[in-house]
Amino acid sequence: MPARIDFQTEPSRYRHWKLKVSGSRADLILDVDENGGLFEGYQLKLNSYDLGVDIELADIVQRLRFEHPQVRVVVLQSGKDRVFCAGANIRMLAGATHAHKVNFCKFTNETRNTIEDASEASGQKYLCAIKGTAAGGGYEMALACDHIILADDGNSTVALPELPLLAVLPGTGGLTRVTDKRKVRRDLADAFCTMEEGVRGARAVKWRLVDQSVPNSKFEAAVGQTVAQLTAGPETKPDATGIALTPISRTFEGDTIAYSSLQVDIDRESRRATLTIRGPDTAPPETADQMQAAGAGFWPLRLARELDDAILHLRSNEPELGTIVFKSSGDPVKVAAYDAFLDANDTYWLAREILLYWKRVLKRIDLTSRSLVTMIEPGSCFAGTLAEIAFASDRSFMLDGTLKGDNRPPATLALTALNFGRYPMSNGLSRLETRFIGEPESVGAARDTIGSALDASDCDRLGLVTSAFDEVDWEDEVRIFLEERASFSGDGLTGMEANLRFAGPETMETKIFGRLTAWQNWIFQRPNAAGAEGALKRYGTGVKASFDPERV
Amino acid sequence: MPARIDFQTEPSRYRHWKLKVSGSRADLILDVDENGGLFEGYQLKLNSYDLGVDIELADIVQRLRFEHPQVRVVVLQSGKDRVFCAGANIRMLAGATHAHKVNFCKFTNETRNTIEDASEASGQKYLCAIKGTAAGGGYEMALACDHIILADDGNSTVALPELPLLAVLPGTGGLTRVTDKRKVRRDLADAFCTMEEGVRGARAVKWRLVDQSVPNSKFEAAVGQTVAQLTAGPETKPDATGIALTPISRTFEGDTIAYSSLQVDIDRESRRATLTIRGPDTAPPETADQMQAAGAGFWPLRLARELDDAILHLRSNEPELGTIVFKSSGDPVKVAAYDAFLDANDTYWLAREILLYWKRVLKRIDLTSRSLVTMIEPGSCFAGTLAEIAFASDRSFMLDGTLKGDNRPPATLALTALNFGRYPMSNGLSRLETRFIGEPESVGAARDTIGSALDASDCDRLGLVTSAFDEVDWEDEVRIFLEERASFSGDGLTGMEANLRFAGPETMETKIFGRLTAWQNWIFQRPNAAGAEGALKRYGTGVKASFDPERV
Repeated sequence: MPARIDFQTEPSRYRHWKLKVSGSRADLILDVDENGGLFEGYQLKLNSYDLGVDIELADIVQRLRFEHPQVRVVVLQSGKDRVFCAGANIRMLAGATHAHKVNFCKFTNETRNTIEDASEASGQKYLCAIKGTAAGGGYEMALACDHIILADDGNSTVALPELPLLAVLPGTGGLTRVTDKRKVRRDLADAFCTMEEGVRGARAVKWRLVDQSVPNSKFEAAVGQTVAQLTAGPETKPDATGIALTPISRTFEGDTIAYSSLQVDIDRESRRATLTIRGPDTAPPETADQMQAAGAGFWPLRLARELDDAILHLRSNEPELGTIVFKSSGDPVKVAAYDAFLDANDTYWLAREILLYWKRVLKRIDLTSRSLVTMIEPGSCFAGTLAEIAFASDRSFMLDGTLKGDNRPPATLALTALNFGRYPMSNGLSRLETRFIGEPESVGAARDTIGSALDASDCDRLGLVTSAFDEVDWEDEVRIFLEERASFSGDGLTGMEANLRFAGPETMETKIFGRLTAWQNWIFQRPNAAGAEGALKRYGTGVKASFDPERV
Repeated sequence: MPARIDFQTEPSRYRHWKLKVSGSRADLILDVDENGGLFEGYQLKLNSYDLGVDIELADIVQRLRFEHPQVRVVVLQSGKDRVFCAGANIRMLAGATHAHKVNFCKFTNETRNTIEDASEASGQKYLCAIKGTAAGGGYEMALACDHIILADDGNSTVALPELPLLAVLPGTGGLTRVTDKRKVRRDLADAFCTMEEGVRGARAVKWRLVDQSVPNSKFEAAVGQTVAQLTAGPETKPDATGIALTPISRTFEGDTIAYSSLQVDIDRESRRATLTIRGPDTAPPETADQMQAAGAGFWPLRLARELDDAILHLRSNEPELGTIVFKSSGDPVKVAAYDAFLDANDTYWLAREILLYWKRVLKRIDLTSRSLVTMIEPGSCFAGTLAEIAFASDRSFMLDGTLKGDNRPPATLALTALNFGRYPMSNGLSRLETRFIGEPESVGAARDTIGSALDASDCDRLGLVTSAFDEVDWEDEVRIFLEERASFSGDGLTGMEANLRFAGPETMETKIFGRLTAWQNWIFQRPNAAGAEGALKRYGTGVKASFDPERV
């Protein structure tokens, strides 16, 4: 296992994917280097993947949006003969800790959702053209695409063999997308998911598992036709020229990670990471062209990338830090000015992509299984987009007034138009709508404050923070909360937070992270799957798994 | 542990509840007999409960609907001083097997849902009047009610202390109802659920945890006022006179359980139970009065009660029977005639209650974590309501033609009006709408067949069965399916079925059984809760639980 899993990569370092962009079409080829696994102890045979392969995929989906905005269709194919993708590597899963399995599944699910978001929100459609076997996570990758073409050659199949082979679920969205996206009849879905050998040809079409079954002789033509269909509508960003996602600025030193706009301070004894966001130093540019020229250095984009990286790092590499404390420093007026700039330029492709990226980063925070708390203190800049972090938190505390000897201005919080629908959670509601699900009139009251700097008593009255404390109580209250939180069972907190954060409607996305993931995590704990005689451990040994016959 | 948990009871055997009915008001008093636990090894102190207490509650809710239809409001109170209810008994939970914990939670959740169904569908409102502590499952019982009054006496509190005390979730709907029914703000919900001591008085009202906080001097008056409000609307069943839910007919003999309209045959070697439903011997009555006179002997009601009991018995007492096979024998025309009778008399209270009960029984089947398969064979009577069982199954197989030497008529399946909305699943859709979620036009095609006897080829064409086999293939196909199913991991099947059965929308009910229950089951497997040093085991020992600090 590497000392640290790095979620940053770039095209020159890809080992498993090849991307060829030509005009509005990108060809994305999965050609896994079987010796390129992230951990020791397994080979990535048959185009199977591990987290390292998926980190590259996530990077590609992201770069396609920012570096290649003119791309309108991505054709996903295999670079191997006779196999499209065998899914998540089983030896990797069998050898991984419970925490790694869970984090692996979460990240791969987020990546699949990102593909769907690129299709829906950025007009980059995904076409999956399958020759050979697409099994398990291989088929789940196809399920995230808009259109699936399966070669009708007597060999190519789609399959979800997890249950019969491994006693686990197709957990990268498979079960949910089969019923809720492909809308396969439930008994056929049951048949499909209990079938090692999968389904091919006309039957795969009839069962709604794929869109087309096409003989090899007509395969390329069918792909071309579908590419044409998927790009038939009017171009939404005709003049877009990409920007380069240059490497983020990041240094690790002891228990501090310093980014350009963010610092992570780790307190191991208290099992806590404090993320301090730095607001912008300068006012936003005046024109969209200036934003384009700033590129990856443009503050909102730079911060989003750094925050995303910090969250992913903490999730995978720091499992014992149970609480994430968000702080900020800077000028809230400048932060709000950036929000206003993005909002005013939301027809410009790059502004739109940055807003969409923030939506995804905030969702990543919502789905992070750590206790999240925001401290709104003197000198902080929780305005608009940054205030969303407070609304994504399990609790938020605000200091009323100042602390002795601190000459920074008292804390304020400010709302902008972006707090009202621009960053929906995975339940489809804004964070304020979710927060005020029992009192929708409070959303309106909050909206009426746009443009005002809200002090602690305003925020308390409007219900925007959990508690406001004055100087006398602040330190004790915060300390007691943090100590108490750290004393609870992390598993209990994970389950509780996964329930309390998502009031109201459910979507395919929340079903994947709620119902499907929670059941999968349960199964990952059960001896039938993960025990010494379980199916994950016994797979490939020639010895059949031994199952406890009890149903619970 | 008793040799067999019996889900049948009756008022004369209640040990934990007192019910007093007077006109349209019922007073329901929880007064747990601490020596009346279902298992050895714990005492039910502080009005805490185990499955036995909940079996009585379920019986009461059911009898109120059938035996006391004139009741319009049920006032739930405690019979003990200073404590309303301490929730599920912790020593019971600590000592229970994983399977028992899961089944216990499922049944108690179903009972809470039944309370809400009685309120919504039968006009029997529940008012919870709390004096003393309502903690954990005690408060969750209150959450299932329409209105909560909390005494403002400096002592009475509501609390969900599961997480801080036991490292588990408030799993009897608590987390879901706090966010989705009471619509408590999420950070306040987080504060509430991490607080051992709970919340009282005006703060409980402000946080939306209760509806009223009332001093003792005005408590009875407030209860009376709310009773008056809850019964203010027009009476919906003014002339209803209850029927007696007489004991069901049931004998256990070896591996057979014989009911009057149902037989359960257990094949232990194959780990399978076959439930054979017997259709009615006679035509339905001509008038509603005749149905009323038949009372609990009326075939649809009798079968519903027997089927409900059989399912509950298999769930709790036969955990190793992984597959339930549904069969039937009888005249499908008569079955359809009963459906027509119920449909035509649906303004008569008893017909409506029977339809509502079938809705609940079918939901109980949906939520049963066994593989469900229906065999539609010659001589069977899967029509209308009984056809729902086939649609609730993971697979259905139909014999096309007859078997050699069998002179019964070839199998048919028939639909009635009741298949189209009368029995919604917990996702709010009918089983046919869920089945055909990808092709809604198929629901219309199915509806057009009402009144026809559909043979195997019709059913295959209409998509109403998974597969139809002729005499040549039938035995082999069925045998192979059943053998293969029994070879899979039961845990994997449980997770898979819990995902595939519920396509489409989610409701508070599906959230409870999906998101909340799945996370709770995961936590029940984790050492932090259930291990030797976990919080459940250590509770009350004076030694603090030892937690693995890792978050997953």
